[in-house]
Amino acid sequence: MTILDIIAKKRDGKSLTKEEIEFFINGYTKGEIADYQVAALIMAIYIKGMTDEEIVNLTLAMANSGEVLDLKELNKVIVDKHSTGGVGDKVSLILLPLVASCGVTVAKMSGRGLGFTGGTADKLESIPGYRTNLEVKEFINNVKNIGISMISQSLNLAPADKKIYELRDAISCVESIPLIASSIMSKKIASGADKIVIDVTVGKGAFMKDEKSAKMLADEMIKIGSLAGKETVCILTNMDEPLGYSVGNLLEVKEAVKALQGHIAEDVKDVVLELGAYMLMFAGITKNVEEAKDILEMNLVNGKGYEKFIELVKAQGGDTSYISDLDNFETSKYIEPIYSEEEGYICEMDAKKIGNLVCSLGAGRIEKEDKIDKTVGIIFEKKVGDFVDKSEVLGYLHVNKSEQLETAKESLNEIIKIRKEKPEVKKTIINIIK
Amino acid sequence: MTILDIIAKKRDGKSLTKEEIEFFINGYTKGEIADYQVAALIMAIYIKGMTDEEIVNLTLAMANSGEVLDLKELNKVIVDKHSTGGVGDKVSLILLPLVASCGVTVAKMSGRGLGFTGGTADKLESIPGYRTNLEVKEFINNVKNIGISMISQSLNLAPADKKIYELRDAISCVESIPLIASSIMSKKIASGADKIVIDVTVGKGAFMKDEKSAKMLADEMIKIGSLAGKETVCILTNMDEPLGYSVGNLLEVKEAVKALQGHIAEDVKDVVLELGAYMLMFAGITKNVEEAKDILEMNLVNGKGYEKFIELVKAQGGDTSYISDLDNFETSKYIEPIYSEEEGYICEMDAKKIGNLVCSLGAGRIEKEDKIDKTVGIIFEKKVGDFVDKSEVLGYLHVNKSEQLETAKESLNEIIKIRKEKPEVKKTIINIIK
Repeated sequence: MTILDIIAKKRDGKSLTKEEIEFFINGYTKGEIADYQVAALIMAIYIKGMTDEEIVNLTLAMANSGEVLDLKELNKVIVDKHSTGGVGDKVSLILLPLVASCGVTVAKMSGRGLGFTGGTADKLESIPGYRTNLEVKEFINNVKNIGISMISQSLNLAPADKKIYELRDAISCVESIPLIASSIMSKKIASGADKIVIDVTVGKGAFMKDEKSAKMLADEMIKIGSLAGKETVCILTNMDEPLGYSVGNLLEVKEAVKALQGHIAEDVKDVVLELGAYMLMFAGITKNVEEAKDILEMNLVNGKGYEKFIELVKAQGGDTSYISDLDNFETSKYIEPIYSEEEGYICEMDAKKIGNLVCSLGAGRIEKEDKIDKTVGIIFEKKVGDFVDKSEVLGYLHVNKSEQLETAKESLNEIIKIRKEKPEVKKTIINIIK
Repeated sequence: MTILDIIAKKRDGKSLTKEEIEFFINGYTKGEIADYQVAALIMAIYIKGMTDEEIVNLTLAMANSGEVLDLKELNKVIVDKHSTGGVGDKVSLILLPLVASCGVTVAKMSGRGLGFTGGTADKLESIPGYRTNLEVKEFINNVKNIGISMISQSLNLAPADKKIYELRDAISCVESIPLIASSIMSKKIASGADKIVIDVTVGKGAFMKDEKSAKMLADEMIKIGSLAGKETVCILTNMDEPLGYSVGNLLEVKEAVKALQGHIAEDVKDVVLELGAYMLMFAGITKNVEEAKDILEMNLVNGKGYEKFIELVKAQGGDTSYISDLDNFETSKYIEPIYSEEEGYICEMDAKKIGNLVCSLGAGRIEKEDKIDKTVGIIFEKKVGDFVDKSEVLGYLHVNKSEQLETAKESLNEIIKIRKEKPEVKKTIINIIK
């Protein structure tokens, strides 16, 4: 078996065997196969596609290319949650303590943000003292003790996926459903998941721009999950506008805490309850979606989700006084209102443009090594479909550099489209694929 | 314009503009575009194909990626000859002095051999004193003085083609008609050709294994020539068995000299006359194929082609006493007959297998830096279709290492297939495409 034979086979549209896929993934991970050879192979895969069997073999080979988190000693069904990325997405911060308070075992390794989508690990680090870099042993101990731990991705999980993802980015081969699906699923499998709930975001601020492509991706991931023995459900959610009201690391942590205290935005609540319901069912807590949602809503109202979050922060070394009094958190130097320039209905708040704007204020990374500014961002007062008067406050800019204020205000006024006609407001939950 | 856009365009099967092709070729030549990006693009080109316009733009961009030989001061129509490679192919050594003796201006830069096909420059260097590494000025002066010069490729001609060819080899993208055609034509155009005669070899010892693919390649090269303003003709010739009787650098030089002295193998003569006729017509010497062939044959018989060869060798610093008395040439240590093991007709003498065998004796290069042994090779006494008695001599092995003798004999007896039935002998000239 040589890489030349494997490239030629896929070039001619033939299916690769498990052994051939493992040969290429292992060789590439070890650096024995050159970038240009894998680039040619990836392009051939992009154009010629892969069978379901090939995709699952690719996923498993990538999952096994590095360390695999072993959570067997917990002796629990490990339900993992993933999002394909969005703007203002604070779902994990609310959902995971909430489901943990309902009895789901949560052992979560989160990624960092790159580009306009933020990472959960970055948001957690906004809490003074919170250690995201626990050793695996301490991580597992926390899960044993309080049923939840949330850390950054410290293990060398699915390194082949990382190399291939970077290469795809450099050769215009990102938008391939089989490759996206296997990339996501390989990381979930390597991080020890038994069952997987995936928030597939759809729209302007998401990777998948329309429901059709999102559904294709969902179908592919469910097939992989099924063939790999990891039951998977995909919830398609709207990401045309940012989720909830805040965008920016610390601002989102604050919104999440308030949500756990019962003050939760409707769209955020929709996503949390839908994903949470499947997590509860996957964990065997209930067999009924409505019942699951009732349990979750109860723990939002009675504060049990919030208490679990406090427990989590404490266990990770975080200072809970910040959580119990959010005013203790540092704020940005400038907090400036943005006023509506006309009267009418908000028709559009392009999540990607907002994400890029907040990123440019310092909240996100452009390069992997960039430091992020935790305090900057935007808190909106309005959502798409809301009516606003002229000069009414649309939201507040949180900025640390005075020179950014004016251009950011102008950008936001351009991004938020106001028209006379009331727009049709999209549902937050677009579809459930299982 | 970015390389990512260009890759994505071809990935989606769209045509690239002249500017996009030049951007990628120039960027790659300068090292500003990475191997893996070009690898992905080449794979997309391989699978999605290119329009005729794209192919000619690619060819011209590659031709202009380095030095371009400027032969304008000669004030002549420069007719170049190319072969897609074969075994025992001594055509250039005979054809070029012959057409020069008929008045065609010959300014020829030849490549070196790699793998089982030999290079004309290597063969010329078998003549003691012959300098293949002339400066361009001296090269042009020789052409002015005697109407011919033959040197090795000393200029940096079409470096983009060289880089892309090496890359294609490493990513299973060699067998692409558009890429092969533009590779050949880019080098011809860079070497100053006005009109081009191409020997497209077909069969076991050729790159093109059947007439169909050879015709596709020929059609593509003729289209490129037409769009680039370089009139081109392709002669499809049989390369199932070696051309003529000898294989090996010095042995082929000797066969070429004898041919110029009038003792020429039928198949070699067919190729020389057919290619030569088009060279004469392209140079404006005659408008008629048969008349051209008559002129050529006359100059084979009357020794004018041979005299031109002597002039050439002298002008390049070679010792002509070797040419006038071929026995002066060094020979290999061992010259051993190979006997037929049975009686019957020779049905097959696989040119590729013979090329590889001679290469293994030391006549060819496996790596570009390898030194070659000029004296080794094989002189056959028989061709496909000939009848042989048991124990009749099939040919002579010329070898310098005694340990190679036995295995080489055994290999040859296996390669030369003898059967009771008289085989159908293929014509040497398969087709003429113009």
